[in-house]
Amino acid sequence: MDVNIWLFEDFETLDVFGPVEVFGRLSEKYQIKFYSFSGGEVKSKQNAGINTLPYEQMDTEKEYILLIPGGQGTRPLVKDEEQIEKIKELAEKAKYVLTVCTGSAVLAKTGLLDGKEATSNKMAFTWVKSVNEKVRWLKKARWVDEGKYYSSSGISAGIDMALGFIETRDGKEAAEKTAKEMEYLWNEDKDDDPFAAP
Amino acid sequence: MDVNIWLFEDFETLDVFGPVEVFGRLSEKYQIKFYSFSGGEVKSKQNAGINTLPYEQMDTEKEYILLIPGGQGTRPLVKDEEQIEKIKELAEKAKYVLTVCTGSAVLAKTGLLDGKEATSNKMAFTWVKSVNEKVRWLKKARWVDEGKYYSSSGISAGIDMALGFIETRDGKEAAEKTAKEMEYLWNEDKDDDPFAAP
Repeated sequence: MDVNIWLFEDFETLDVFGPVEVFGRLSEKYQIKFYSFSGGEVKSKQNAGINTLPYEQMDTEKEYILLIPGGQGTRPLVKDEEQIEKIKELAEKAKYVLTVCTGSAVLAKTGLLDGKEATSNKMAFTWVKSVNEKVRWLKKARWVDEGKYYSSSGISAGIDMALGFIETRDGKEAAEKTAKEMEYLWNEDKDDDPFAAP
Repeated sequence: MDVNIWLFEDFETLDVFGPVEVFGRLSEKYQIKFYSFSGGEVKSKQNAGINTLPYEQMDTEKEYILLIPGGQGTRPLVKDEEQIEKIKELAEKAKYVLTVCTGSAVLAKTGLLDGKEATSNKMAFTWVKSVNEKVRWLKKARWVDEGKYYSSSGISAGIDMALGFIETRDGKEAAEKTAKEMEYLWNEDKDDDPFAAP
């Protein structure tokens, strides 16, 4: 299954590369690809320049995961109607949509999370809620599993969510093996959120 | 201070982008730049294509940190005498050198770690030791602080080391604030290593 990552200027570095590390270690099952609205180099807030393909080259005929990171760049992105419309189309076609941090605000803007539970970065929670009040925003969650839609809390929580996704889909052993290979202490309880919003 | 990251084909994604997230959040103090032997796009093992400058463009007149990640690409890299010689020169000029995972094997190959303590990925430990037996390899360490030289255990341990570096240089409050912003549960004891080699 392809893991299609949607990049935009000023995305948050670890939102992307935490999950990329997790899925990338299971390369017999998941193939990672980077896309953006226009293709070409996209820079993270932390100055990493990543090469992307334009979204038109995404293979939407096969099953795929769409991953939307967060970061400062989500603030202008939720106001970009053309790009939100395209993200909505690609999210509808996806088998799964995973958001990290304020990436859930982007997905919320499409309306696809209306009536569903989701979470986000706890320091940006007030803004995220204001983007779409019809989402059932959970203040206390490391990540939320809504079947098709997964959303994680801030930045590092994306790693825990990706491992949680692997657990649900590929089994606990696969998730634990991956965490061990990464020498990562997995926070495996999605409801245990030490950074919960007040 | 510049944080100059040395990339090579098949580097391990999170080895780089964990520390990049940490230093990148302190952008008033640390500026992140990506270099490689020849410049241009370098691909991680997990298929992320990063744009780099050729090393000749590195400003070695100012104080800088050299960061060397690990990954499968370190196996051919330690045999590349020309590149190892260049890394040695840049490591000698650096104010600090930080290695993640098997990046310590690369630095060990230069001889600059001879007689010094260092650690590495625990699953690759036998190979790493074989690269240079004059290094005092620590089997049990999340990361090692040798003043100028920092080395971390596997992959995720680079995040803990980067926060430990920030603690030493910028104070505990700065490290804790950064971890909190990342919603990251910092493993702050460098001697506590749950993945210690047998």
